[in-house]
Amino acid sequence: MGKKGELVSFRPDIKVLDATIRDGGLVNNFYFEDSFIRSLYETNLKAGVDYMEFGYRASKTLFDPDKFGKWKFCDENSIRDIVGENDTDMKISVMADVGRTDFKTDIIDRKDSVVDMYRIATYLNTIPSAIEMIEYCNKKGYETTVNIMAISNANGSDLDTALDILGRSCVDCIYIVDSYGSLYPEQTAALAEKYLEIGDKYGKQIGIHAHNNQQLAFANTIEALSLGVNYLDATVSGMGRGAGNCYMELLLGFLKNPKYNLTPLLEFIEDNVQKLRDSGAVWGYDVPYLLTGRLNQHPRAAIEFIKEHKTGYANMYLELLENNI
Amino acid sequence: MGKKGELVSFRPDIKVLDATIRDGGLVNNFYFEDSFIRSLYETNLKAGVDYMEFGYRASKTLFDPDKFGKWKFCDENSIRDIVGENDTDMKISVMADVGRTDFKTDIIDRKDSVVDMYRIATYLNTIPSAIEMIEYCNKKGYETTVNIMAISNANGSDLDTALDILGRSCVDCIYIVDSYGSLYPEQTAALAEKYLEIGDKYGKQIGIHAHNNQQLAFANTIEALSLGVNYLDATVSGMGRGAGNCYMELLLGFLKNPKYNLTPLLEFIEDNVQKLRDSGAVWGYDVPYLLTGRLNQHPRAAIEFIKEHKTGYANMYLELLENNI
Repeated sequence: MGKKGELVSFRPDIKVLDATIRDGGLVNNFYFEDSFIRSLYETNLKAGVDYMEFGYRASKTLFDPDKFGKWKFCDENSIRDIVGENDTDMKISVMADVGRTDFKTDIIDRKDSVVDMYRIATYLNTIPSAIEMIEYCNKKGYETTVNIMAISNANGSDLDTALDILGRSCVDCIYIVDSYGSLYPEQTAALAEKYLEIGDKYGKQIGIHAHNNQQLAFANTIEALSLGVNYLDATVSGMGRGAGNCYMELLLGFLKNPKYNLTPLLEFIEDNVQKLRDSGAVWGYDVPYLLTGRLNQHPRAAIEFIKEHKTGYANMYLELLENNI
Repeated sequence: MGKKGELVSFRPDIKVLDATIRDGGLVNNFYFEDSFIRSLYETNLKAGVDYMEFGYRASKTLFDPDKFGKWKFCDENSIRDIVGENDTDMKISVMADVGRTDFKTDIIDRKDSVVDMYRIATYLNTIPSAIEMIEYCNKKGYETTVNIMAISNANGSDLDTALDILGRSCVDCIYIVDSYGSLYPEQTAALAEKYLEIGDKYGKQIGIHAHNNQQLAFANTIEALSLGVNYLDATVSGMGRGAGNCYMELLLGFLKNPKYNLTPLLEFIEDNVQKLRDSGAVWGYDVPYLLTGRLNQHPRAAIEFIKEHKTGYANMYLELLENNI
C-alpha cells in the first residue's frame, strides 16, 4: 500500500477529533471549569476541528458522580449547557467503555440528543460486548467508532479475527489505539496497513489515537495519515493520561486543508495550558513514561512514580524489565 | 532504496554521537561544571556511546574567551583534564565552524592530540571553505565529517552539486542537519535517500542531526536510520539550542545492539538534568519553536520570545508568516 497524498496536498476525507476533555479528564478526574470547556468549544469551531469529544458516558452505578467532574458522565444537559443545539459543522462525540456504561438506559435516541457519535472503547477480548454496544448505538441513529486499546500487546491472529468481525459489523470507523505509547512509526505503518485493508474491504474509516511516551505521538499520527488513515485524534498541548497524546497544535500545523486554522488554538493554549498545569494537572513526556512505553507496558507504574515524586529511574527500569520476563 | 535492518535486528555500522556539550553549550554559553563533564564522559563510556563531542574549536580572535565557558574553545588541555589519554573505545570529536575557527594554528597533529574527529559545520554557500578545512584536518590525521546546516532551506540542485563535490573530497561522513527542526519524516527520508546515494557512490558514511521543534527529532533520526543513515547525533534529554535535539535516552532505548546501555544514562539524567534546568538553562519543545520550525525559519525569534517571557503566540505567528512572503 503506497502513500496517500503528498505533503503539499490536502485530503478532504481527513477528520480531526479533539479528545482534550476525554483523555485530559483522566489527568484531573474531569474537573474542568465550564469556562474552559466553553472556550475550547469556541476554539475548536474556529480552528476547523471536525469532532469534539466531551468525555465519557460512564455508568453512575459503577462510578460515584460525587467523585468525578461531570465530563466523566456527559449528561445530555451538561453538553447542551455548552453547545446549545450545536448548530455548527462540528460534530460531538462521547466515549463509552465496554463494561462501564449503562448504555441501554443512558444512550437515548440521536434525534433527542446533541451527540453525533459514540466511540466504543474495548480490549481485544471484549469485542463481542463492543459489537453489542455498536449495534445498539447504530440503531439509535449514531455514528460509531470502535477503539481497540492496547493494540501493541495484541497477538497478530487474534487481531486479524477481531478486525474481520468488526469489518462485518455496522461500525463506521475502526481506531488504532497505542495506549502504551510503545509503537514506533514502522510498527504503526504495519498496523495501519492491516487496518486499512479491512477498511477497504468493508468500507470502514480508519482512525488513530497515539500516546507520547516516546515523543512519537505526532510522528505516528502523520505516518498513519500518510498511508490513508483519516480519523486523527489530538489534544491541546497533548493533554492526556501519562505522557499524553498527539499535540493538536502540531497536527493542525501539519495539515494543508485551509479549513484548519492554527491561530485560535494558539490563543487558547496561551490563555489556558499553563494555568491548567499550575492548578496541578500533570501530563506530558517524562523519563518514566519512556520506560513503560519502550517496554510496552501500561503506564500505571510511571504515573505512580511521578505522582509520588519517587526517585530512582534506574531501579524503576529494572523492575519493569523484570515484569517483561 | 529500501529499509535497512529490521526493528529486531541491530546494525554494527551504527555510530552514536553525544553532542550534549556542544549543542547544549549553546544554551548556557558553554558554562558547565567540570564535574558535569566528567560524569557525562563516564556515563557515555558505560552507555556504549561511540563518539562524545566536547564542544567547538572556536577562534579566540573572534570570540572573547572571558565571555564563554571553555568548551567553546576545547583546548587540548581542557579535554585532557577530563579524559587523560582517553584510553577507551569511545572517540572524541570537536566541531569547527567554517569562518569561525583558526584551524591552521589551533588544530594540531592528531598524534599529539586526544581528539579523534573534527566535524566541520558549514552552510551550502561556504562548501569551498569547508573543503579546505576538511582537507587540512584529514592531512593532520583526523577523521572528518561535514555538517551541512539549514538543509531544509536548500535549493535542490545546489544541494546535488554540493553533495557531489563533498563525495569527491576526503571527508569521511556527510551529515543531514535539520537546523530549523522543520523536516517531517517523509522529507527526512527523501533527503536521506539523496545523501545515501552519494554515500554509496563515493564510500562515505551518512549522519543525521535533528532538532525537536515539532517533536520529530527522534522520529526523523530513526526514519533516517531505517534507510541506512548510520551516524546518529543525540543529546542528554535533548539539551540543545531552542527546542533541542534528539533525546539520547529515546535513541538508546530504540537501538538493539547490546553494546548500548540505557541504565547509566538514566542515573545521569536523574542526577543532572533538573539541576541544569534549575540553574537557568532553558531548552526543549515549546510553542514558539513549533512555529519557527513549521515555517522553516531560524529559531532566533522563538529563542528571544521565550528568553524575554513575551506573550502573544498568535501575533508572533503572524509576524513569522509575514517573513515568509
